[in-house]
Amino acid sequence: MNDRFLKACRREPVDCTPVWFMRQAGRYMQEYQAIRAKHSILEVCKTPELAAQVTLQPIDRFPLDAAIIFADILLPLEAMGLRLEFAEGEGPIIHNPLRDRASVDQLRPVDGDELAYVEEAIRQARRALTGKVPLIGFAGAPFTLASYAIEGGGSRNYIRTKQLMYREPEVWHRLMDKLARVVTGYLRRQIRAGAEAVQLFDSWVGCLSPGDYAEYVLPHVQLIFDGLKREQVPLIHFGTGTGSLLRLMRQAGGDVIGLDWRVHLDDAWQTVGHDVAVQGNLDPVALFASVHEIERRVEDILRRAAGRPGHIFNLGHGILPNTPIDGVAVTAEMVHKLSQR
Amino acid sequence: MNDRFLKACRREPVDCTPVWFMRQAGRYMQEYQAIRAKHSILEVCKTPELAAQVTLQPIDRFPLDAAIIFADILLPLEAMGLRLEFAEGEGPIIHNPLRDRASVDQLRPVDGDELAYVEEAIRQARRALTGKVPLIGFAGAPFTLASYAIEGGGSRNYIRTKQLMYREPEVWHRLMDKLARVVTGYLRRQIRAGAEAVQLFDSWVGCLSPGDYAEYVLPHVQLIFDGLKREQVPLIHFGTGTGSLLRLMRQAGGDVIGLDWRVHLDDAWQTVGHDVAVQGNLDPVALFASVHEIERRVEDILRRAAGRPGHIFNLGHGILPNTPIDGVAVTAEMVHKLSQR
Repeated sequence: MNDRFLKACRREPVDCTPVWFMRQAGRYMQEYQAIRAKHSILEVCKTPELAAQVTLQPIDRFPLDAAIIFADILLPLEAMGLRLEFAEGEGPIIHNPLRDRASVDQLRPVDGDELAYVEEAIRQARRALTGKVPLIGFAGAPFTLASYAIEGGGSRNYIRTKQLMYREPEVWHRLMDKLARVVTGYLRRQIRAGAEAVQLFDSWVGCLSPGDYAEYVLPHVQLIFDGLKREQVPLIHFGTGTGSLLRLMRQAGGDVIGLDWRVHLDDAWQTVGHDVAVQGNLDPVALFASVHEIERRVEDILRRAAGRPGHIFNLGHGILPNTPIDGVAVTAEMVHKLSQR
Repeated sequence: MNDRFLKACRREPVDCTPVWFMRQAGRYMQEYQAIRAKHSILEVCKTPELAAQVTLQPIDRFPLDAAIIFADILLPLEAMGLRLEFAEGEGPIIHNPLRDRASVDQLRPVDGDELAYVEEAIRQARRALTGKVPLIGFAGAPFTLASYAIEGGGSRNYIRTKQLMYREPEVWHRLMDKLARVVTGYLRRQIRAGAEAVQLFDSWVGCLSPGDYAEYVLPHVQLIFDGLKREQVPLIHFGTGTGSLLRLMRQAGGDVIGLDWRVHLDDAWQTVGHDVAVQGNLDPVALFASVHEIERRVEDILRRAAGRPGHIFNLGHGILPNTPIDGVAVTAEMVHKLSQR
């Protein structure tokens, strides 16, 4: 069993820097496209055999140090009663977005088997990964989930989300509290089904000012991390555009803080403190560059990590759909080669 | 003549904090919509009487301390030979985007009267503003212009832009140099036509890592600011998502650094240095909030500015199309009231 990733999460010395990529199972792989030609995203997510199979695809192909279960961050919203659709080429759509207190009150708690298919996919993937690499579970963070639920899909300016936050703070906190409780239970069940680490994706939280983050988001994220502490698996806390939020995100919780490419890894690590691990932070577009250019960038990140225990190499966000597969392969190999202790 | 804005740009004491808003002439105003019902954006830009009229609309309605000429940052790209269209509700489209060295080589310099209509609009607006408030000219910065020219419009991940940067750095620098020279000449002519300050909009530069900014952008922005120094009007340098780029942007130039809402104004001012003025930094979505909530946010920003000479109140980005007009009015009034010295 390759335990580099788990060791780095705990800031223990490793033989070389572990590497995995957000959205490493995805459209850039032909194997994935072959499955998706026959099944929708939701079908893949809800069929444990398929989800487990897709989870394994990048592990069989690249020298990665962790697998991440194939799922979508919006699945808990569907379980709570929102009607979710993935329109081809348009991203997710929620047909009954939240707009008022009544719709927030109607959200169902998720405390039973609503998401049992994810747990079963984790069990199957974990069996297939025996002797290989650890399996990561994940969930969307309350703010990012709330933004989809309120906007009805992706957003550019988060106007409705912030309007609810600013104009009806009580409804906002009620929504965030509901989401935080659902996410806590969901991640706990993923861990108990076999996830050896979990990552909380607060992908869009970087649209907030530090003041708004502290007031409207932090306490709810803290509830999640506090609720998962006794599970004793590494907890990863990730967002993008978070250069000015990192200290607050650290305060909210997590054993590993995810960094995007907009910050220098050494500066950011100093900001969050060396008593926590960091994960990142290559620009996903760098994978489109020449091998020489990729090497220059990987070297720079490793130089900034300075061999300090507790660095997990990753991108600053998920792999983009048309990423050249060679860029992915060469980056994973290079991280190991250039970081040999 | 109200010279609060110009004094603050020079970090001189003022009776109260000056305020203006990016995109203060825009769709949220009925007066503007009435003009746009009869004329396209490009018609308004290219008809000096209309551009000047629209420039004045917010000045006649709100207690603002500066006007900004109505124009679009993409006009110089059109003058350089790109076919520009504003598709209703879709944003700008460029029909012949730049994709290779040949298309970059074919770009025309803009050294004559190609943009004389903007200069004429400035002359007319300036006359109408006599005894009122100063007039700001502006241009898009090379990176932001390059991203539109290469992507063919707005972008989410800037994949083609960064690919050119990473894979063909020589073509990239050639393009950026051409753009920087065009922008320098364009801003110089705006100043000579009567603009009393100019702002460089690097709106999308926050998608870059600090390393990429330093290597691929900074020298070209520096060329612009160095080239405008002897014009002796205040130079404003603005971008969004720039939390980790502020020190480098300061190095590139500008008497005033624009801040978005993702940073605390006091932290950011310390980062860029108190020997430069700052402009910002209310979240544009805050204008959708209640008066009480707006007040809380304006107070927070003024408290962080701490009465130090050299703060110009603004949003962190342009006014959004559906912004309630009362939010704009109340914010401008409040800034003056709460900052009385």
